[in-house]
Amino acid sequence: MASRNVEEFLQKEWRTTVNPDLQKERDTCTFNTNELTYILDGGKDKTQRRREIEKILFAEPLFQCDGLAGFTRSELYENAIHRTLRINQLKKEHNWTQEDFDIAIRCLNYEVGFVIHLSMFIPAIERLATDDQKAKWLPLAESYRILGTYAQTELGHGTNLMALETTATFDPRTDEFVLRTPQLSSMKWWPGSLGKTATHAIVLAQLIIGNKNYGMNPFMVQLRSLEDHMPLPGIIVGDIGAKLGANSNDNGFLILNDVRIPRENMLARNSKVTKDGRYIQTSTNKANYATMVLVRLSIIRWAEDTIKNGSLIAIRYSAVRRQSSLQAGGPEMQVLDYQTQQYKIFPSLAASYALFFTYEAMMKEYEIAYAQIMRGNNQLLGQIHGQLSGLKAFASDLVTYELEMCRRSCGGHGYLKASVVGETLLHTLPLVTVEGDNTVMYLQCARYLLKQIAKALAGQDVDEPTSYLKKDILSYTCPVQKGEHCTNPNYLLKIYTQRAHSAIASVARQLQFDLESGKDQSSAFNNNLVSLVQAAKAHCQLCLMKNFVESVSALERTCSENLASVLRQLCLYFGLHGIVTASGEFLESEAIGLQQLEWIKAEELKSLAAIRPNAVALVDAFDLHDQTVMSALGRYDGNAYQHLFEAAKREPMNQTQVPPAYYKYLRDLIKGQPLAKL
Amino acid sequence: MASRNVEEFLQKEWRTTVNPDLQKERDTCTFNTNELTYILDGGKDKTQRRREIEKILFAEPLFQCDGLAGFTRSELYENAIHRTLRINQLKKEHNWTQEDFDIAIRCLNYEVGFVIHLSMFIPAIERLATDDQKAKWLPLAESYRILGTYAQTELGHGTNLMALETTATFDPRTDEFVLRTPQLSSMKWWPGSLGKTATHAIVLAQLIIGNKNYGMNPFMVQLRSLEDHMPLPGIIVGDIGAKLGANSNDNGFLILNDVRIPRENMLARNSKVTKDGRYIQTSTNKANYATMVLVRLSIIRWAEDTIKNGSLIAIRYSAVRRQSSLQAGGPEMQVLDYQTQQYKIFPSLAASYALFFTYEAMMKEYEIAYAQIMRGNNQLLGQIHGQLSGLKAFASDLVTYELEMCRRSCGGHGYLKASVVGETLLHTLPLVTVEGDNTVMYLQCARYLLKQIAKALAGQDVDEPTSYLKKDILSYTCPVQKGEHCTNPNYLLKIYTQRAHSAIASVARQLQFDLESGKDQSSAFNNNLVSLVQAAKAHCQLCLMKNFVESVSALERTCSENLASVLRQLCLYFGLHGIVTASGEFLESEAIGLQQLEWIKAEELKSLAAIRPNAVALVDAFDLHDQTVMSALGRYDGNAYQHLFEAAKREPMNQTQVPPAYYKYLRDLIKGQPLAKL
Repeated sequence: MASRNVEEFLQKEWRTTVNPDLQKERDTCTFNTNELTYILDGGKDKTQRRREIEKILFAEPLFQCDGLAGFTRSELYENAIHRTLRINQLKKEHNWTQEDFDIAIRCLNYEVGFVIHLSMFIPAIERLATDDQKAKWLPLAESYRILGTYAQTELGHGTNLMALETTATFDPRTDEFVLRTPQLSSMKWWPGSLGKTATHAIVLAQLIIGNKNYGMNPFMVQLRSLEDHMPLPGIIVGDIGAKLGANSNDNGFLILNDVRIPRENMLARNSKVTKDGRYIQTSTNKANYATMVLVRLSIIRWAEDTIKNGSLIAIRYSAVRRQSSLQAGGPEMQVLDYQTQQYKIFPSLAASYALFFTYEAMMKEYEIAYAQIMRGNNQLLGQIHGQLSGLKAFASDLVTYELEMCRRSCGGHGYLKASVVGETLLHTLPLVTVEGDNTVMYLQCARYLLKQIAKALAGQDVDEPTSYLKKDILSYTCPVQKGEHCTNPNYLLKIYTQRAHSAIASVARQLQFDLESGKDQSSAFNNNLVSLVQAAKAHCQLCLMKNFVESVSALERTCSENLASVLRQLCLYFGLHGIVTASGEFLESEAIGLQQLEWIKAEELKSLAAIRPNAVALVDAFDLHDQTVMSALGRYDGNAYQHLFEAAKREPMNQTQVPPAYYKYLRDLIKGQPLAKL
Repeated sequence: MASRNVEEFLQKEWRTTVNPDLQKERDTCTFNTNELTYILDGGKDKTQRRREIEKILFAEPLFQCDGLAGFTRSELYENAIHRTLRINQLKKEHNWTQEDFDIAIRCLNYEVGFVIHLSMFIPAIERLATDDQKAKWLPLAESYRILGTYAQTELGHGTNLMALETTATFDPRTDEFVLRTPQLSSMKWWPGSLGKTATHAIVLAQLIIGNKNYGMNPFMVQLRSLEDHMPLPGIIVGDIGAKLGANSNDNGFLILNDVRIPRENMLARNSKVTKDGRYIQTSTNKANYATMVLVRLSIIRWAEDTIKNGSLIAIRYSAVRRQSSLQAGGPEMQVLDYQTQQYKIFPSLAASYALFFTYEAMMKEYEIAYAQIMRGNNQLLGQIHGQLSGLKAFASDLVTYELEMCRRSCGGHGYLKASVVGETLLHTLPLVTVEGDNTVMYLQCARYLLKQIAKALAGQDVDEPTSYLKKDILSYTCPVQKGEHCTNPNYLLKIYTQRAHSAIASVARQLQFDLESGKDQSSAFNNNLVSLVQAAKAHCQLCLMKNFVESVSALERTCSENLASVLRQLCLYFGLHGIVTASGEFLESEAIGLQQLEWIKAEELKSLAAIRPNAVALVDAFDLHDQTVMSALGRYDGNAYQHLFEAAKREPMNQTQVPPAYYKYLRDLIKGQPLAKL
């Protein structure tokens, strides 16, 4: 046996071409992935534009990143700031539009700094400030002469805005507000960029004039000196500490110790305080509300982006990983061929497309509603708020669950940071609590649904998305009367509709009953919270299925038949899988019986096999750049093992052969020498 | 308004007594927590012993830890080694038994170094080495003169041991084995402590003599010099890189480039190679198998420990967190009072106890089986292997899911490392893939169940845990005929039994049918993998419920009625909740109908309210030391906000007021000065 030179051995092993198992998948798929990519981007020209932006971005050494696994928090923070500055320079150099800039941020997988300055601080000035105030603050903010955050949540209070404790007391003698953190639980806690970056914050505080509380109002407060960045007198500010992910963001705390600001720093678009201490409400504009709703919508987009990453990593890796065989002595199988593996990861694939179609549909609804609101017509606000509260929660629940399934489908390697799928999960976890905890979000949606069904039962008109509540609940009949009926997505949609209607009607009835039998409002509500959440989920799941079915129907009219049939298949699978995962609730609603469930389960398993040949192509169509995904397991070339090894070689602990701990502890231990008391 | 001194303000806010909301819970619980603690520890004397050990441990500055959130990987690694050495010194100083030592490790929440040396390397020598080999290696290992690991899995192969690629080729000219990593996918990858710590490894490799492969055998290989810890010639070794958790462990990779070891380094308890190259099998001892089973059992214990931590944090925090009110203008409620919050966290409480009782019961079974195996009787091996494969998967699935629910129940703060509940989840995630991926584990259990049902149908005896399979499947009748029947855990147990029986019988029938209709073995299996996993889960869920019911029945005979009634309530809730979460499958099996499901769901919600008054006491009874849990949210004193703030103050980024990134990037930006090209 000839002895080997290890460097040669390793080099010989290095593959610069695509892994043949992955190439085979691409060669045998049944549709043109580019056609689907154009749809996902919104047109061929948009795909081209995105690819141009990617070319510019990833020519930058700063963005040719091998992953951030070895970074400390300070390094992550600094890196994110560096990235933001560079991307702003690129915007100037290449005359990018705002849309181009937003595309670039998505291409960088949102890994940039002081996001809140752009996403919340500036928009908050726009909607909360008077024209005079805007003229003063917007140019400063837009040119980054001040860096801002939006300081609302407190250590002891998040969801319940009314209970926030920070006060802004008007002092008529000096024409100032005095901002104060009255106790520990009232320090601001969580605002992004507050810890180390922001020079200014829009602070939400209870306005006190005399002894009267006028409720929550927004105040512009300078936090740090523009000379040397030191916190100003009375300001105690810092980072809230390491998180499970998102550690490049310096989410912060803020204690206000009787900080004085001039009266004109109250953002006064909706209400103002006069010099003599009168509180005047000047507007009932709902733009603030609409912005909150828009943030929930953007979370759906974020959820979509994140599950695309996860399913891409899981599916590509499952195509190149070979493990065991079901035939004794047979060659090892691609793990993608195991039914159990398909069962683990195809839900994430279907969810990626379901969320894409849902985001697109909801964005259209939002734009219509927003235009109306700007014209002073708030008719659609309740509908869009009810829908998006529920969908924010449903989308984030769905993707966090499915991302973990993607991670598990990568076996042990899914636990390595280099695989990125776990890191993606960690970055996504906050979506279930930010901008309203999911349970609270479902309950907001449920309250909307209760109002709608009450209207329907009273014979009044209801909003379009809940129009099914007008139907006589006894008039439903199950459209699936034979096994083959399960292959019709429209039939499945009817089943989803009946189940949602039944869940809403049932909890409405129970609440009514509890109230009529003498329970007080609050305990009647508390006794039905779990059912209310379930009713909201049923409605949201129906929305996703409806958007998927309707979008695919619309696309069929313009796209190739090859592509249409693949999308129909995926939509069908999404529908079947959703029923199976909540089968108890579907049976309970009597939207299906045991016979239907048996057919649906059998059809679900069949559809796994039908999706299998196009699984890789369906994630390739996302057209995500390797530098966007940054996963050793999910690279386009499929050479997972060599990328994992490359990542390991970069591990800081591997930069010396012998670790410092050897000299400190292990040497004496191994050499049997007495150890000092440690 | 008087202005304040901030230090005074903060001090005034500081509470040194127990949070009154938490104290109230303790004052009003209905049983004696000490009585339950003694049961969990295995007796009053054992509780006292544990508390003595905790006193010794937590008097050590090293173990008075404020959390490891700010540590780099190298620091985590070094800290873990430091801890291991110190705990070994304490063992000597205080004459601890091995049992005391194991208790100490649990009190430190397993946060110690080179665990694999004790948990796998030494046990592997004991069961794989001849007496001569043991005499040589055990004293070295036990005195830490060598540090070992067990190197089995490879980059490209985990679960399928037969496919491991590393070779050990016998060279009769030199009487040596030559160990080789033939390709990239065959490098050893994952073994704990392999990266930087281990001086020796037991390497599993394909034994080649002449041109014949004699299969997997174990070889003792020295990796690093005992003089200076440098890797020996032909050894390329390092750390595999950062993981989502468990980063104090230097899981490693190993490339063997024709490394020669003497023939006597093949661990030869079961087979040996003679000087002239003959392979002789000397024993068919199943001790190796039994050890693998024991590791699966220990994962159940780990799962139990981990979910105890999670439920303790979630419940204590839910008692002190106040948020919103269901009455307009009412005082904010303890979030523990919301039905939805109880629904989120009581499953983790019930799972803690279910896993405790299951571990205890399985340990007894294991001890009986092991004693038999050591006497050469392998009759119980199949049974204990089948059960523990499934239960390892079920327990780890259960706790990883419930831990995430615990994390969410803490709202946004659950995302902070200082809350620890998320970190606990990250440390627990590998349980679903280590020692056999869960899907593979369920399938091993399912194969065992298929054998048992085949025996039952053939009229043969079956093992005790599957004795229900002997029953005529048509003879089941639902014991729940009225709503109040749902409060009888024994009735629920019958429902679980029927459902498991039905799931196993149904997939056995389907497999039989597929084979008889001409499908080949492998595709028949592949088409039923999902159902096989479901059948195994159904059996495992039955096991947990059975152990819970039987253990509580046994305890009732000796414990106080107050405690018995609390445990009965929790057991009942566990049974109800399990049915509701898999209600579709229970309906499908016809173990219940829609009417029963309605009763069970109503009873489940009622039992949330029944558990509520004792929730805090039920986690207090775990008697986990604050230094074991290390959570800002879960402290015994319940002063969550001040512990969170303390943790934030320790954040490295807060050690300067102005971050270095200011001077590098932000200053010029804010001052409007032209930025260099970044």
